[in-house]
Amino acid sequence: MISWLNHVAIAVPDLKKASAQYAALGATVSEQQDLQEHGVAVVFVTFPNTKIELLHPLDENSPIAGFLEKNPRGGVHHLCFEVENLDAASRKVAEIGVRILGNGSPKIGAHGKPVVFLNPSDFQGTLLEFEQM
Amino acid sequence: MISWLNHVAIAVPDLKKASAQYAALGATVSEQQDLQEHGVAVVFVTFPNTKIELLHPLDENSPIAGFLEKNPRGGVHHLCFEVENLDAASRKVAEIGVRILGNGSPKIGAHGKPVVFLNPSDFQGTLLEFEQM
Repeated sequence: MISWLNHVAIAVPDLKKASAQYAALGATVSEQQDLQEHGVAVVFVTFPNTKIELLHPLDENSPIAGFLEKNPRGGVHHLCFEVENLDAASRKVAEIGVRILGNGSPKIGAHGKPVVFLNPSDFQGTLLEFEQM
Repeated sequence: MISWLNHVAIAVPDLKKASAQYAALGATVSEQQDLQEHGVAVVFVTFPNTKIELLHPLDENSPIAGFLEKNPRGGVHHLCFEVENLDAASRKVAEIGVRILGNGSPKIGAHGKPVVFLNPSDFQGTLLEFEQM
């Protein structure tokens, strides 16, 4: 049901510094992309088996802004797993008593694909994103 | 220099519940292993491209115990990247002004291989482990 770890999203207070640090360690680092509709600037750090997405808020209404207020140094924001069938995965999540954030319906995520986020209060304090492949 | 994401370590307040949740979502979940010398019980959750290691303290002196005191719901504890040459990676880390935890020398990690941990205060609030392959 959940399979490939698509990315680890890390909120960072300084996107340029974070990018430079990962590049210095030999990782492949993209240019910054501003995703206006999601309120975040993102840099993709590519590894042979997965990606890190470095996130920084574009404005104070960004969901990442609140995270950085609580975690000013930055930190892991969420893990995104690919799923083949988002409806089936969402039903299974409900079955085991884990809530989906928002109204429970998929939204279009930052990669243009349907996604849901699980409520971290119901799942080991970890924010998981499921992305339909 | 840093390459494959070996695992994402997640500290959890209830190892049985966490294991059951990941198993219900279709992930391959190992039996619990107690690593006495590291003070943690661990369950390996295997995905096609990487692993999650669910960690729970074996006693109150475990480094994970302190983390769970601060984060009672659980949360991502660290990311472990494989490196080909730990000495070269450690020198690069020093070059960019990032401290290594402890005395700066590698220790033998939970997989029996030399590891270092970077100081999260110097690296986006994220605890990175480098493991020599």
